[in-house]
Amino acid sequence: MKISLIQQSYKGSKEATIKHTLEMIKKAKGELVILPELHQSEYFCKSEDTKYFDLAESFERDVEFWRRVSKEQNIVLVASLFEKIMDGIYYNTAVVFDRGKVAGKYRKTHIPDDPGFYEKFYFTPGDSIEPIDTSVGRLGVLVCWDQWYSEPARIMALKGAEILIYPTAIGWLMCPEDRRDELCEKENNQQEKEKMLNAWLSVQRGHAVSNGVYVVAVNRIGREKDESGVLGGIEFWGRSFVYGPQGEEIAMGGSEEEIIEAEIDLKAAAEVRKIWPFFRDRRIELYQCLLKRYC
Amino acid sequence: MKISLIQQSYKGSKEATIKHTLEMIKKAKGELVILPELHQSEYFCKSEDTKYFDLAESFERDVEFWRRVSKEQNIVLVASLFEKIMDGIYYNTAVVFDRGKVAGKYRKTHIPDDPGFYEKFYFTPGDSIEPIDTSVGRLGVLVCWDQWYSEPARIMALKGAEILIYPTAIGWLMCPEDRRDELCEKENNQQEKEKMLNAWLSVQRGHAVSNGVYVVAVNRIGREKDESGVLGGIEFWGRSFVYGPQGEEIAMGGSEEEIIEAEIDLKAAAEVRKIWPFFRDRRIELYQCLLKRYC
Repeated sequence: MKISLIQQSYKGSKEATIKHTLEMIKKAKGELVILPELHQSEYFCKSEDTKYFDLAESFERDVEFWRRVSKEQNIVLVASLFEKIMDGIYYNTAVVFDRGKVAGKYRKTHIPDDPGFYEKFYFTPGDSIEPIDTSVGRLGVLVCWDQWYSEPARIMALKGAEILIYPTAIGWLMCPEDRRDELCEKENNQQEKEKMLNAWLSVQRGHAVSNGVYVVAVNRIGREKDESGVLGGIEFWGRSFVYGPQGEEIAMGGSEEEIIEAEIDLKAAAEVRKIWPFFRDRRIELYQCLLKRYC
Repeated sequence: MKISLIQQSYKGSKEATIKHTLEMIKKAKGELVILPELHQSEYFCKSEDTKYFDLAESFERDVEFWRRVSKEQNIVLVASLFEKIMDGIYYNTAVVFDRGKVAGKYRKTHIPDDPGFYEKFYFTPGDSIEPIDTSVGRLGVLVCWDQWYSEPARIMALKGAEILIYPTAIGWLMCPEDRRDELCEKENNQQEKEKMLNAWLSVQRGHAVSNGVYVVAVNRIGREKDESGVLGGIEFWGRSFVYGPQGEEIAMGGSEEEIIEAEIDLKAAAEVRKIWPFFRDRRIELYQCLLKRYC
């Protein structure tokens, strides 16, 4: 199966961004096409401002729009949208479309909050970790911060997910133009930048190995200023990737806008689990501590 | 703190092997010294033969021997021994010595069984995943096959372990001299060898990142024939390592016998958890599936 990762930057407006996304989707060769986190807009969690909640008002229309795209292109499409349920409840929601149908939704369960990534202000945490069945397989769709956790990856695998998919918005903090603060200075050290990027790759590569699944992350790319002026903004680092069920690198994007194309074989993952039978030997009677905050 | 990883090969007899181990320990610079899995003997799980149970008869004397070594060298020492509890119950047990005292034991909880690694024949699985307090910190000692699992790593971290330590015996299957079979052929493909080694590194590097802890694995080195003649034997791949709490490589051994020396700073791990606060956001109410065989 061919899959396509759309590593895209924000184009200054929703209209311009979606137009560009559509052009990239049309060029993509995959049956399964995956977009980055909150791809319709800027990554607005760089600051806390109530005006950004308006972006979620169009959720139903957005779902309808991307559903039609999946039908026209005859693809399985993973989109990442800002969902409003009622006044006061908003989710960071991945929606999976299967050739014109809504196959399912996943609402981000692990919500970050650190300088430049103020997501706890915007998003209610989702309350369900369930894979989504599609015509290309059972997809374990998770979102960004979830990727640092072994638990949702394992749960998706135990529920039969054949691929873990993470729409993502991650990068380095930029220093404000008029001043430099300690945190952005630290992050702009080249060695620190590499360390963070490698940590991000490593932890997900680990999920691939320990669960014998493909792991795909699709990240934003480009520099987005913090319009509030408090922070400098974020330089999204791209490097979207596909790891195989033994952690082998199948595809890796760079630091430019691009479509990353990959070929994967779900049967290969099944074979790996025969000779590396990690699921056989789990000691579930010893794992109660995992359900506690600390032990 | 300085730590030393004794990446050692089997010397043909227990006496010769221990003599060599002692020489390496005397050269090692660390306050914390770690030995590979079942380091007193050959890796006997290459075949299933009742004669090897005799190796566990000396367990109490072995404990006393290594206790004295830890006192004479004034070190914290992690040894890996074959433990007999009663006729019919044997464990693969890591024993931690703290400058002349027995600080604690860990009995391997996840037991492998695949061609050349017939551990289920020899070892009863341990029933406890608890860190061990020593004068150099709280050690999360696990053993080999445990390293492929996110659960014991997470549990040790939730119980306050500051370093995960894995005495290990892992390598590639050698082909029998008089014939080549499909499995050893596959494993002796250079690309497959790299893939397996990288999977082993990746999954443990992932534990370091997701738990914000140091991770240390000390592997055997050298080629050991299968004396039963059924299989060729195992080429242990060495590559003992230390990863830091962001998955950064701190030390990495090669494919020869050697002492790998590293310097680690447990305070650094505490700092990492402030800016990468993964423990803050675990969704424990959603993790029940982890206690099931499958969901």
